[in-house]
Amino acid sequence: VGEQRVEQSTIAVIDFNEDVFTERLIENDEECRKFIGTDTVSWVNFTGLHDVARLQRLGDLFQIHPLVLEDILNTGQRPRFEEVDDRLFIVVRMLYRRAAGHEIVSEQVSFLVGCGYVLTFQEDEGDVFDMIRERLRHARGRVRSMGPDYLAYALIDAIVDNYFVILDDIGMAIEDLQDAIFEKPDHSALRRLHDLRSDMIFIRKALWPMREAVSAMEKTDNVLIARATRPYLRDVYEHTVQVIDSIETMRDMLTAAMEIHMSSTSNRMNQVMQVLTVIATIFIPLTFIVGVYGMNFEFMPELKWRYGYAAIWGVMIAVAGVMLAFFRRRRWL
Amino acid sequence: VGEQRVEQSTIAVIDFNEDVFTERLIENDEECRKFIGTDTVSWVNFTGLHDVARLQRLGDLFQIHPLVLEDILNTGQRPRFEEVDDRLFIVVRMLYRRAAGHEIVSEQVSFLVGCGYVLTFQEDEGDVFDMIRERLRHARGRVRSMGPDYLAYALIDAIVDNYFVILDDIGMAIEDLQDAIFEKPDHSALRRLHDLRSDMIFIRKALWPMREAVSAMEKTDNVLIARATRPYLRDVYEHTVQVIDSIETMRDMLTAAMEIHMSSTSNRMNQVMQVLTVIATIFIPLTFIVGVYGMNFEFMPELKWRYGYAAIWGVMIAVAGVMLAFFRRRRWL
Amino acid sequence: VGEQRVEQSTIAVIDFNEDVFTERLIENDEECRKFIGTDTVSWVNFTGLHDVARLQRLGDLFQIHPLVLEDILNTGQRPRFEEVDDRLFIVVRMLYRRAAGHEIVSEQVSFLVGCGYVLTFQEDEGDVFDMIRERLRHARGRVRSMGPDYLAYALIDAIVDNYFVILDDIGMAIEDLQDAIFEKPDHSALRRLHDLRSDMIFIRKALWPMREAVSAMEKTDNVLIARATRPYLRDVYEHTVQVIDSIETMRDMLTAAMEIHMSSTSNRMNQVMQVLTVIATIFIPLTFIVGVYGMNFEFMPELKWRYGYAAIWGVMIAVAGVMLAFFRRRRWL
Amino acid sequence: VGEQRVEQSTIAVIDFNEDVFTERLIENDEECRKFIGTDTVSWVNFTGLHDVARLQRLGDLFQIHPLVLEDILNTGQRPRFEEVDDRLFIVVRMLYRRAAGHEIVSEQVSFLVGCGYVLTFQEDEGDVFDMIRERLRHARGRVRSMGPDYLAYALIDAIVDNYFVILDDIGMAIEDLQDAIFEKPDHSALRRLHDLRSDMIFIRKALWPMREAVSAMEKTDNVLIARATRPYLRDVYEHTVQVIDSIETMRDMLTAAMEIHMSSTSNRMNQVMQVLTVIATIFIPLTFIVGVYGMNFEFMPELKWRYGYAAIWGVMIAVAGVMLAFFRRRRWL
Amino acid sequence: VGEQRVEQSTIAVIDFNEDVFTERLIENDEECRKFIGTDTVSWVNFTGLHDVARLQRLGDLFQIHPLVLEDILNTGQRPRFEEVDDRLFIVVRMLYRRAAGHEIVSEQVSFLVGCGYVLTFQEDEGDVFDMIRERLRHARGRVRSMGPDYLAYALIDAIVDNYFVILDDIGMAIEDLQDAIFEKPDHSALRRLHDLRSDMIFIRKALWPMREAVSAMEKTDNVLIARATRPYLRDVYEHTVQVIDSIETMRDMLTAAMEIHMSSTSNRMNQVMQVLTVIATIFIPLTFIVGVYGMNFEFMPELKWRYGYAAIWGVMIAVAGVMLAFFRRRRWL
Repeated sequence: VGEQRVEQSTIAVIDFNEDVFTERLIENDEECRKFIGTDTVSWVNFTGLHDVARLQRLGDLFQIHPLVLEDILNTGQRPRFEEVDDRLFIVVRMLYRRAAGHEIVSEQVSFLVGCGYVLTFQEDEGDVFDMIRERLRHARGRVRSMGPDYLAYALIDAIVDNYFVILDDIGMAIEDLQDAIFEKPDHSALRRLHDLRSDMIFIRKALWPMREAVSAMEKTDNVLIARATRPYLRDVYEHTVQVIDSIETMRDMLTAAMEIHMSSTSNRMNQVMQVLTVIATIFIPLTFIVGVYGMNFEFMPELKWRYGYAAIWGVMIAVAGVMLAFFRRRRWL
Repeated sequence: VGEQRVEQSTIAVIDFNEDVFTERLIENDEECRKFIGTDTVSWVNFTGLHDVARLQRLGDLFQIHPLVLEDILNTGQRPRFEEVDDRLFIVVRMLYRRAAGHEIVSEQVSFLVGCGYVLTFQEDEGDVFDMIRERLRHARGRVRSMGPDYLAYALIDAIVDNYFVILDDIGMAIEDLQDAIFEKPDHSALRRLHDLRSDMIFIRKALWPMREAVSAMEKTDNVLIARATRPYLRDVYEHTVQVIDSIETMRDMLTAAMEIHMSSTSNRMNQVMQVLTVIATIFIPLTFIVGVYGMNFEFMPELKWRYGYAAIWGVMIAVAGVMLAFFRRRRWL
Repeated sequence: VGEQRVEQSTIAVIDFNEDVFTERLIENDEECRKFIGTDTVSWVNFTGLHDVARLQRLGDLFQIHPLVLEDILNTGQRPRFEEVDDRLFIVVRMLYRRAAGHEIVSEQVSFLVGCGYVLTFQEDEGDVFDMIRERLRHARGRVRSMGPDYLAYALIDAIVDNYFVILDDIGMAIEDLQDAIFEKPDHSALRRLHDLRSDMIFIRKALWPMREAVSAMEKTDNVLIARATRPYLRDVYEHTVQVIDSIETMRDMLTAAMEIHMSSTSNRMNQVMQVLTVIATIFIPLTFIVGVYGMNFEFMPELKWRYGYAAIWGVMIAVAGVMLAFFRRRRWL
Repeated sequence: VGEQRVEQSTIAVIDFNEDVFTERLIENDEECRKFIGTDTVSWVNFTGLHDVARLQRLGDLFQIHPLVLEDILNTGQRPRFEEVDDRLFIVVRMLYRRAAGHEIVSEQVSFLVGCGYVLTFQEDEGDVFDMIRERLRHARGRVRSMGPDYLAYALIDAIVDNYFVILDDIGMAIEDLQDAIFEKPDHSALRRLHDLRSDMIFIRKALWPMREAVSAMEKTDNVLIARATRPYLRDVYEHTVQVIDSIETMRDMLTAAMEIHMSSTSNRMNQVMQVLTVIATIFIPLTFIVGVYGMNFEFMPELKWRYGYAAIWGVMIAVAGVMLAFFRRRRWL
Repeated sequence: VGEQRVEQSTIAVIDFNEDVFTERLIENDEECRKFIGTDTVSWVNFTGLHDVARLQRLGDLFQIHPLVLEDILNTGQRPRFEEVDDRLFIVVRMLYRRAAGHEIVSEQVSFLVGCGYVLTFQEDEGDVFDMIRERLRHARGRVRSMGPDYLAYALIDAIVDNYFVILDDIGMAIEDLQDAIFEKPDHSALRRLHDLRSDMIFIRKALWPMREAVSAMEKTDNVLIARATRPYLRDVYEHTVQVIDSIETMRDMLTAAMEIHMSSTSNRMNQVMQVLTVIATIFIPLTFIVGVYGMNFEFMPELKWRYGYAAIWGVMIAVAGVMLAFFRRRRWL
C-alpha cells in the first residue's frame, strides 16, 4: 500500500446520460448501490486508498475479485489491462505536477469498467480529470452521449495527454542542460543531468507497459467496448507510442549529454594542461640557467666577463624562443 | 498544432486523367465539391494548417472523421497508415532544405486517399512535390494514366527520395568531421559532432515508423490500391528500409567519431604530459644541484676547489644523460 | 550437487484439507507412502539435498523420473516449468536474508506437484514459507480449502514476494551510493558499486527465466491446475514481471552511477589540475625573476639601482596580476 | 547510378548444356534473342551499367519490369530476393580485392533467373566468377549438367565464399592491431582502428540483408528452383549466417580494441604522472631547503656553523628518504 | 579444412547391443560395410580429417551427400542440426583442455545418425568421450540397452557437460581478475582481461548456435529419435541454455571489470595528482619567497633586519598553514 496522502477517503459519483446529470459525494457507502443496474452511466471515483475498510466495502458492493482489490491497493503495479469476471480492469500511471515548476507526482489510477459504470481508484485528490468533469457538467463533446467505455477512454486520454506536457518540460530542460554543459561542464550540471536521467528511468518504467495495456484494451473483443469507441482507443494507442518514442529520444539525448560532459571535461583539462606545460617548460630551463649563475664557486669565469649578464639574457631569450617555436609546431598554442 | 508558417491557407487542386488536366487555386471552398464523384483523379493540396476553420470546412465536405482531422492538425504525429471509413489515411514526415546549405525543414504531410481523389495537408508552402507537378502537367511517366493510389505512391516516393539527398549531405558532413577530429579534437568539433547527433536522433525518430507505415500500406488488401500499384509500393518500402539502414550506419559512424574524439583527446593529453614530464624531471634535479651551490654556508669546501664549477657541470650533464636514457628506455621520447 | 549446508536431511509433511490438519517430521521414509492416494493435500518438504540416498528412496516412492531427480540435485538449474509424467515439475530460485543486514542467500527450490501432493526440495533449512505454514496451521486464507495447485501457487508467491523485499533493500543501497558518489567518488564507493553490480548480475540471471517458468505454468492446460487457481498464477506472473522491471531499472541506475563516478572523478581531477596550474603558472615566472637577480655576475647594473628592489616587486606584482586576469578570463577561477 | 568504371559495356554469353558449350561476346544486342527459349542454359553477363541505353535494349529483349531495371541501375540497393513476373530477381553485393593488399572493391551484382537463362548485371569487369567460368569450360563439377537455378547458386556461392577471404584478412589485421595497441597505443593505431571499424560498418551493412535474401530464395516454392538445388541454397544460407557471425565477432573485437586503447592510454598517462610526481615531490622540498640557505640575510646563524653544510645534507637525505618510503608504501614505485 | 593435428587417420568402431560388445580399429575400410544393416548399434569414430581420400571412401560406403562431407571437412562450421536423406546430421563444437592449466582446444565434431549407427568425425584424437566408452565397455547406465539416438545424446551431453568445466575455470579467473584490478589496475591486468574477453567472444560464438541446434534436434519428429530419448534431449537443451546464461553473465562481469579498470586507473591518477598538487602548491610559493631574499640587490632593507630571517620563517609557516587549511577544506587531504 502506498503512503497516505489525503486525510479522508472520498467517493465522488457522477451519474449521467445525454439528458440527466448528477454529481455528488457519497457519505453512506450503501448509496452506491442505487447506481448499479440503471441505464445511466455512473463514474464512481474513490480517493484515499489507505482507507482499506471502505475500499473493501465498495469491493463487496461491486463484487470485485480479491486479487483485483489487492492490485488496486498495491500502488506499485505495472500498467496493464485485464478482463476479470466480465469487467475490464485497467491500471495506469498518472503523472502530473501539482503546479508549474513543482516536482512530478506519480500516482496509480485503477479503472474498473463494468456494464453502466466506471470505477476509478486513486490515492491522492489531485488529478488530470478536471477537464473531463467540466465536459460532463456542460455536456460538451461526445462524452455525455456515449457509454462507460468512452468515459474510460476519455479519462485515459487525459492521462496520456498530460504525459506530453510533462515530457515537453523535460525535453526543454534537457536542451538547456546540453547548452550549459557545453559552456561549463561542472559538478552542478552533472547533478542536474543525473536528476533528469533518474526522472527518465522512472517515467520510462511507468510508460513502457502502458503501450501493451492500451494495445490489449484496443484489441479485446469484449462487448463492453463499443465499435464506435475503438477508433478512439486506437488513437490513445498511437499517442502512447508517440510518448514512448519521445522518451527513447530523450534517453538518447541524455546519453549524448553525458558523453558531451565527459568530452568537455576532458577538453578543458587538456587546455589547462597545455597552459601549464607551456609555462612550466619555458621557465623551468630558464630558472635552471639563472640558478647556475647564482652558484657561489670561486672560480666561475663567466661571472667576471664584462658582458656575461647581457649574454645570459641572450641565451635565455633564445631558449624561450626555441621552446615557443616547438610548441607552435605542435599546435599547442 | 504546429506553429504558423504561412500567412494564408491555400487549397490547390490538380484534376486530371489521361486526357484532361486542370490546375487551380480554390477560393471558395464549396468548389471542391465538384471534384468528388467524377471519373478524373483530383489532387487537393491544403497548405496552412493554422487555418483551422477552413480545414474544418474541407473536413465537412469530404466527411473526414474528427479524429483524423485532429491528427492532421497535431503535426507531431508518428508516420503511420490507417484505413478509416473506406479511405486510406497516411501520415508521413517530409524532410527538405529550402535551399542548399540551409537547415533541414521537417514537416508533417497527411494523405487521405479516397475513391478518385488524394487530399494532402501540409503546414508550409515549400515541398518536394514540384517534380510530380511537372510530370502531371506535361503528362510524363505513368502518373496521368493511373489512379489516386499511384499518385499517392508518387508523392510518398518523392518524399522518400528526398531523404537520400538529406542523408548524403549528413553522411559527407560526418566524414569531414571524422577527419577533423583526427586532426584536432577540439571544442568546436565536439559541438558539430553533437549537432549532427541531434539531427540523427531527430531523423531517426521520424523515419523508423515510416517503415511500418509503408509496409502496412503495401500489405493492405484495400481495393483502393490497384494490383498494378503494389510493386511500386514494394519499391518505396525497399527504399525506406535502405534509408533506415543508412541512418543506422551513420549512427554507428557518429558513435565511432565520439569515441575517436575521446581517444584523440586522451592521446593529445598524453603527449602533453610526456613533454612536461620529460622537461620537468630533467631540470628539477639540476635546479636542485645549482641551488645547493648557491647556498651561503661559510664552510662549503667544494666552492673553493679549482675545478668545482667544471665538475658540477659534469655531474649535471651526467644526471641529464641518465634521465634521457631512462626516458628512451621507457619509450617516452 | 550444491555444498552441504545442513547436518541432517529432514522430511517434513503437512497433510490437510478443510477439516483435517497434520504436521510431522518423517523418520521412516516408508511412512510417506500413506500420504499418496488420499483425498487430503500433502505437502512433503525435503531438506538436505546432500543426502542423495534418502532422496533416491523418496524418488522411488513417488516414482520420480531419474532426470528430474538429477535436476533436483544439481542446484544450479535455471528456473523452469515442465510437465513430466502427468506431474508438474517447477524449479525456482529462492532469495532471502537469514537476518536483516546479512548477505543474500540464494537457494534452488524444486516443486513436484502431483495429484493430491506437493513435494518441495531444498538444500537449506531456512526458507520464506513460514507464513504459509502459519496460514495452514490456523486455517487462515483460502489455502486449506483448495488443492495442491493453490498450495504450490502460495509457496511460489511467497518466494516472489520476498524478491520485493530484497530489491527494496538493494534499491535503497543504490540511492545511498549515488549520493555518496556525488559527494566523494573514491575507491570504497567504487568497491560498493561493484558489489551491488555483481549482486544485480546474479539476481538478474536467477529471475529472468522465472518469468518464462511462471508464464508456462499459467498457460498450461494440465488438469492439475484448477480453473480457480489460474487468476492467482496470473497474479504471480504479473509480480514476476514487475520484479524484472525493477531489476532493469536498477541496472540502469547502476550504469548511471558508474558514469557519475567516472564524471565526478574527472571533475575533481579537473579542479585539482586547475589549482595546480594557477599556482604554478603564477609563481614559476616570479621565481625565475628572483632567480635572475640572485645571479652573481659582477656587472649587473640593476643590482646597484637605488629602487631596483622596489622596482622588481612592482614587476612581479604586475606579472601576477596579468596572469590572474588571464585565468579569470578563461574562467578557471 | 554508380560511377562509370569501365569504358565500354559488354555482354558476354555462355550457353551450355551437358554436351554443348559456347562462349562469346555479343556485339549486336539482337543476337541475345536466339538464346531465349532454347533448351540450353544461357548465362548473359552484362558489364558497364553506365550504358543505360544498351541496358534498356536488353531489358526490352527480356521484357524486364521498369522497376527492376531501375534497381539494377541504382547500385546502392540492399541485397534482396524477389519474384517478379515468374522470374527471380536477386540483388547481392560482391566484395573482392583486385589484387592482394589492394583495397576492397564493393559492387552490386543483380541476377535475373528465368526459364533457361541467368542474366547478371555488374558495373565493373573484375569479378569472382572466373572459377565458375573455368568449371563451365572444362565441364568440371555439376554445373554443366544442371539448370539455371544451380548456375545462380554457383555464382552466389562464389560471392559468399569470397567474403570469407576478405574477413580472414580483416580478422588478421584486427589481431595485429590489438597487439600493437598493447605495445604502444598511439595516434596511428587509433587511425588504423578507425579504418577497420569503418570497413566493418560498411561490410556489415552489405551482408546483413544477404541473410534474408538467401533465406527467401531457399524458401520460395517457385518452380524455377529445382528440388535438387535446394540443399545447395541451404548450404549458401549456412555460409551467409557464418559470415554474419564472424562480422559480429569482429565487431566485438574492435569494440574491445577501442576500450583497450582507452585503457592503455590511461595506464601510460598514469605511469608518466607517477614518475613526474615522484621526482617533483622529492626535489621540490629539497630545492626549497637549499633556497633557504641561499638567502642573503645578515643574521642567519646556521650559515656560520662549522658543520652547517654537512647537517643540511643530512636533513635533505632524510627528507628524500621519508618521501621515498611514503611512495613505496603507496606502491607508486 | 582445418590444420592437420594427427599423423594417421583412424576409424574406431564400437559395435554393441545389450548382450554384445565389440571394439576395434578398422584397417581395411571395406570392413565398415559389415556394420551396416545389422541389429546392433555401431559407433564409427573417424579421426584425422586431413585424410580426405579415406573420408571420401567412408562417405561412399555410407552414401553421404557431398555437401555433408564438405561440411564435415570445413571445420569452421556453425553448430547445427539437419535432416539429410533420412539421416540426422549434427555439427557441434567440442571444447576441452588437454590437461589442467593447458589452453582450451576447440574442435568441430560432426555426427551422422542413421538407422543402427552413429558416425562421428573429428580432427584430433583427444576428446571428452572416454567416460562414454567406459560406460559402453562395462555396460553401465542405459546406453547399452538403447539405440543410436541415445548414443548420440550421450556424446553430445558429454560435450555440453564439459562446457561447464571450462566455464567454471573462466568464471574463477574472472573473479580473481576483478580482485586484482581493485588492488592494482596495471597493464598486466589489462592484458589478462583482454585475453579472457577474447576467450569469451570465441566461446560465445561457438555456443550460441548450439542452442538452436539442440532445440531443433529435440523438436524434430524424425523416427530416428525414439520417444524415450526425447526427455534426455530436452535435458541437454536445458543445459545448453544454462551454459549460454553463464556466458552472458560472464560477459557482464567482464564489462564490469573493464569499467572498474578504467575507474580504478582514474582514481589512482586522481590520488597521484592530489599529492603532487599539494606538495607543489605548498612549496612553490615558499621557494619563491626564499628566492626573493636570495637576490643580490644592494638596497634590500629586510636583509639587514635583526630578526629578518626569523620573520621570514614565520611568514613561510603561515603561508604553508593557509595552504594546508585550504586543502583540508576542499577535502584533498
